[in-house]
Amino acid sequence: MRPAIITLLTDFGTRDHYVASMKGAILRINPRCVLVDMTHQVTAHDVEEAAFFLANAYSSFPKGTIHLCVVDPGVGSLRRAMLMMAGGHFFVGPDNGLFTLVAWREKIEGVIALTQPRFFSPAVSPIFHGRDMFAPVAAHLSLGVKPRAFGSKMEDWEKLRVPQPRRGEGKLLGEIIHIDVFGNLITNVREQGLSDFTRGGPPVIRVGRRTIQGIRKGYWEGKPSEPIALIGSSGFLEISIREGNAQKALRLKKGDRVQVQLRS
Amino acid sequence: MRPAIITLLTDFGTRDHYVASMKGAILRINPRCVLVDMTHQVTAHDVEEAAFFLANAYSSFPKGTIHLCVVDPGVGSLRRAMLMMAGGHFFVGPDNGLFTLVAWREKIEGVIALTQPRFFSPAVSPIFHGRDMFAPVAAHLSLGVKPRAFGSKMEDWEKLRVPQPRRGEGKLLGEIIHIDVFGNLITNVREQGLSDFTRGGPPVIRVGRRTIQGIRKGYWEGKPSEPIALIGSSGFLEISIREGNAQKALRLKKGDRVQVQLRS
Amino acid sequence: MRPAIITLLTDFGTRDHYVASMKGAILRINPRCVLVDMTHQVTAHDVEEAAFFLANAYSSFPKGTIHLCVVDPGVGSLRRAMLMMAGGHFFVGPDNGLFTLVAWREKIEGVIALTQPRFFSPAVSPIFHGRDMFAPVAAHLSLGVKPRAFGSKMEDWEKLRVPQPRRGEGKLLGEIIHIDVFGNLITNVREQGLSDFTRGGPPVIRVGRRTIQGIRKGYWEGKPSEPIALIGSSGFLEISIREGNAQKALRLKKGDRVQVQLRS
Repeated sequence: MRPAIITLLTDFGTRDHYVASMKGAILRINPRCVLVDMTHQVTAHDVEEAAFFLANAYSSFPKGTIHLCVVDPGVGSLRRAMLMMAGGHFFVGPDNGLFTLVAWREKIEGVIALTQPRFFSPAVSPIFHGRDMFAPVAAHLSLGVKPRAFGSKMEDWEKLRVPQPRRGEGKLLGEIIHIDVFGNLITNVREQGLSDFTRGGPPVIRVGRRTIQGIRKGYWEGKPSEPIALIGSSGFLEISIREGNAQKALRLKKGDRVQVQLRS
Repeated sequence: MRPAIITLLTDFGTRDHYVASMKGAILRINPRCVLVDMTHQVTAHDVEEAAFFLANAYSSFPKGTIHLCVVDPGVGSLRRAMLMMAGGHFFVGPDNGLFTLVAWREKIEGVIALTQPRFFSPAVSPIFHGRDMFAPVAAHLSLGVKPRAFGSKMEDWEKLRVPQPRRGEGKLLGEIIHIDVFGNLITNVREQGLSDFTRGGPPVIRVGRRTIQGIRKGYWEGKPSEPIALIGSSGFLEISIREGNAQKALRLKKGDRVQVQLRS
Repeated sequence: MRPAIITLLTDFGTRDHYVASMKGAILRINPRCVLVDMTHQVTAHDVEEAAFFLANAYSSFPKGTIHLCVVDPGVGSLRRAMLMMAGGHFFVGPDNGLFTLVAWREKIEGVIALTQPRFFSPAVSPIFHGRDMFAPVAAHLSLGVKPRAFGSKMEDWEKLRVPQPRRGEGKLLGEIIHIDVFGNLITNVREQGLSDFTRGGPPVIRVGRRTIQGIRKGYWEGKPSEPIALIGSSGFLEISIREGNAQKALRLKKGDRVQVQLRS
């Protein structure tokens, strides 16, 4: 039998013992499951950023993987806890919008409110649901407990309002939604949205005070220190500099606008 | 059979290859054991901080887990190497006080001096006992080698002097012992010590120039930017700000004093 | 059967989802393999640093381990992809010199150009070969696919030019090649090169404005705040301060020169 896989995505960092405590809680219930860190460096309480990382990474994992996501500014309050089944994957976490982007992309097979305390730790700290509620639920799920055993169906779970590119007069207006470790500026313009807009025509991209002509296939098409546009590995329009750092060179930040036009 | 679990706690960071070298040394001896990082970001040489992380996390793991701890300012010197059995867990590391806090909480089932070189690497680097001595011992232990095979009983192992809260005239005086990734200020006042002091009365907490009334159940009971006191997930009195950063807001640091009184 | 081990070494950091995507891609093909992080904090695009970490860590792992290394400034360009078998280990990554230092130390058993797309992901992003090409190849290798199935033999793969110590008039001239988490200054002077030079005589080491007498066995031989020289855990001459930080105390940096002479 294939071992169950549980990924972990949090804003706990790796200095404190919080992630280890969650892993211990899982291994107490299922010592055979495979644990993979998605990231623990989500900006504190930034549910939107967590949703972005999750949406970019879950589909690299095999179907059946359980994604345990704990970015949870409302821990212990009345926000609910949820399990979503979508695209053959399982998603466990607080009902605060974390799974919005996954839900856009996948057929949702079911959403369950986690209400059955028999799957939680005997004592649940009101400030550490990651260890005492979500980790045990993920572990029981990895042992084959059926989703419906954890609670009833939820209909009205939370969705994030994620900024979408807008169409203006001959323009597609997006924004920078993430800057990665290499300084690549990742926008919210998706490959499909871009080609719907350009219909094969040659795009011109304006970002900060720079104008970039065309979309390249890869970094190697750029000259040193020249900003280029390409479709990144997660399918978003991205501004990069070959072997350089576009963020530092262009002095741009998350939220800054990106404008696509057709070459006139 | 359940796979053996080895956790790793060091001050090696994750940039250098040191942690990977330890994991390789373990997997050479037992390729089937499950490795879990506790943390590698202990402040360099800070045995007290390591003891704190360990004490907060070990009990989340199943009994039988081997906790391999290498924060070892005296590596290679005459300090001894030890294995402690306590509370059903195994603790392997230098004899420098790392296990003091665990020993306070658990029945100690035995302490062994690691003196049998047949369980070490063939060549032991005098400056990397983590890889050449502690990792191989943990790996052999995970294969079922009996504790006594590693050496003789130790009676007089090192203990840390950990600052404890003091009782003054109508006051309980503690200090901040850790600040976590969210800026929560964790004190050395334990839940039990607090309730022994207050005997159900309403406490007033003074920290820096702020006065905090009462103990909350969770972050959600706080108003934005209001510092609150609560019992953290490891059982310590903790000062927090809901969805904020208490350290930044209150400008406090490790070692700063916390005073509990009864409301008059 | 022993589980297969795959180590991962990248410059992707741990904040983005890139490492998790690679792990997912591996687990889709071989959910039973053991994944170990070597490091993901190589300086961006620094192939030489990656080669150094790899050379220091691979031999701690059991023979048969697959080392997946993706520090790849030329991703997607005409640089080739390679598999090297050496010393009983497998090394998978771009053909850019990453494996130079390993090749110096081990008998090379074969080098293969990775050209068979049936072992890649169905869609290969031109900017994420780590996920779509190298990870799948490592995973198939871990399932027992023979090296020759991945492509043809390569003869002329890339080697780094790594700065080597030079012999001058009664001097051995090296440089600082790495500074670790503790501030230890690691030089490119190897234990063997040092003893070939000193032939048992007492060395004097000059670094920055300091002169250090002799080689110590371990940190404990130093006095507080005294810089000492010793042979580090990877076999290089290293300048350290007991329980201190030699980098901060001596204000030295990577590339700074180190000079060994015989005491006159």
